[in-house]
Amino acid sequence: MLKIIDDVEKMKVYARVMRKNGKMIGLVPTMGCLHEGHLSLMNAARKQTDIVVTSIFVNPIQFGQNEDFKKYPRDIKSDELIVKNLGVDVLFCPHQKDMYPKGYSTHVDVGKMGNLLCGRSRPGHFKGVATVVTKLFEIVKPDIAYFGQKDVQQAVIIRKMTNDLDMDVVIKVLPIIREKDGLAMSSRNTYLKKEERGQAVCLFTAINRARELFADGLRDTHKIIEEMKKVFEQKDLAKVEYINIVDMDTLKDLKTIKDKAVCALAVRIGKTRLIDNTILGVEDEQNAFQ
Amino acid sequence: MLKIIDDVEKMKVYARVMRKNGKMIGLVPTMGCLHEGHLSLMNAARKQTDIVVTSIFVNPIQFGQNEDFKKYPRDIKSDELIVKNLGVDVLFCPHQKDMYPKGYSTHVDVGKMGNLLCGRSRPGHFKGVATVVTKLFEIVKPDIAYFGQKDVQQAVIIRKMTNDLDMDVVIKVLPIIREKDGLAMSSRNTYLKKEERGQAVCLFTAINRARELFADGLRDTHKIIEEMKKVFEQKDLAKVEYINIVDMDTLKDLKTIKDKAVCALAVRIGKTRLIDNTILGVEDEQNAFQ
Repeated sequence: MLKIIDDVEKMKVYARVMRKNGKMIGLVPTMGCLHEGHLSLMNAARKQTDIVVTSIFVNPIQFGQNEDFKKYPRDIKSDELIVKNLGVDVLFCPHQKDMYPKGYSTHVDVGKMGNLLCGRSRPGHFKGVATVVTKLFEIVKPDIAYFGQKDVQQAVIIRKMTNDLDMDVVIKVLPIIREKDGLAMSSRNTYLKKEERGQAVCLFTAINRARELFADGLRDTHKIIEEMKKVFEQKDLAKVEYINIVDMDTLKDLKTIKDKAVCALAVRIGKTRLIDNTILGVEDEQNAFQ
Repeated sequence: MLKIIDDVEKMKVYARVMRKNGKMIGLVPTMGCLHEGHLSLMNAARKQTDIVVTSIFVNPIQFGQNEDFKKYPRDIKSDELIVKNLGVDVLFCPHQKDMYPKGYSTHVDVGKMGNLLCGRSRPGHFKGVATVVTKLFEIVKPDIAYFGQKDVQQAVIIRKMTNDLDMDVVIKVLPIIREKDGLAMSSRNTYLKKEERGQAVCLFTAINRARELFADGLRDTHKIIEEMKKVFEQKDLAKVEYINIVDMDTLKDLKTIKDKAVCALAVRIGKTRLIDNTILGVEDEQNAFQ
């Protein structure tokens, strides 16, 4: 039976009782508008923990002033059906006024790592993410929390924060789920107009180009990135924001790939900003983060 | 039997097991060199919780570059005896390299409130405090944590952080313990030379002046502060850093005292920086923070 909780105090008490009863809690934090990427996280939580909590909260403090907080897609009725069918135990949908009451002022910041990659064009974004995830961890008290590799910088930052602050929660990062043509699943894909949707696969094409070059033995990141850029030259609706190949723990740029590395990119397709990534140098992305 | 733990992982496991067994944990976070102020916190914890954990950690990130981190008094052997005699269950003394390993980068910040009062001359201090307290809360998982009112800004900030981040821990703030002449107990009192120690009571004298004026019906904070300043005029070794009368939740300056207010001051006696405070407008400081 799905339990829907919107009260922060009730969620805290529920989680406290469950933990006292020896139940393992799995948390899947989301901003709703659930797609197959989220589903894979919930399915993993269902297998690995006793109580699965899915949170839906469109977190205002991780959106910049000119970003899409207001128009971010919301579909709570559809989300409710989805989590019910998956056997999720608790749908936690806190209210903005309870999460950030008047006078709210505390933030968690992982430092410079949050200013790289997406952080360059989204100042304050990862501080907002780290803060809301800390709050969700405090409220829901998960043993394991699940994140998607699609937001790779977020995953690296949450893992870093969890380690730095000694949080007693295991972070699992699961592989990107893609549409048939390879476009990474994202709630923001709903923004794409037909022609844009057609060109949006170019992020995946560029990633595959990187994988090919890596497989052929190329380790010079500058050369790989130059080749990836060429993919976008024929796409008139695409505007590359960044393509970087970085260390998996620090997110710092690499000149040469020695072990494994994150190849990440952000591209605007029309007005819609899309991100994608791959981990180079691993046999199986499934376990890249373990 | 006192258990001494210096390993962060061991402390986490111990706390997890205790909580699972339904034990209430009380945490008294200290920087060691324990005095009667700390003792009152541990005694309260002993009465109110099942497992009392006292942590000793001189937290480097709350000291400024020109501050006294290196010479801060340390006396672990004496501290061990004290906690043993009080019936403390666990003395947790983590190592700096485990608390802040290479590449550590995450901080918790309560915002502007940390830049007022002591924050003006100690930039970054309260960010360091909020960060280490978050870490200690994550490691020790207390039901109740105990702080002294002597560090009133710290107490207000920790309470704010705990509320903002939804931490499931009760913050208790216990009254200032004073020497016979009224000097507030502090590890830093050991820095005072004989003549300085004689003049150090002037902070308490100023506080009593404020209490008197308040009792006489004066509510204009500017006038109260002017009167307090006069106390220091005859003290050649004393240099006032600040005297403020502020709101108890926001720490913002008040013009007029309506309800209750914190009267706080920092004064250098020779090279030693001392702080003290009182809560005006409460019958009994014991419960001022409850």
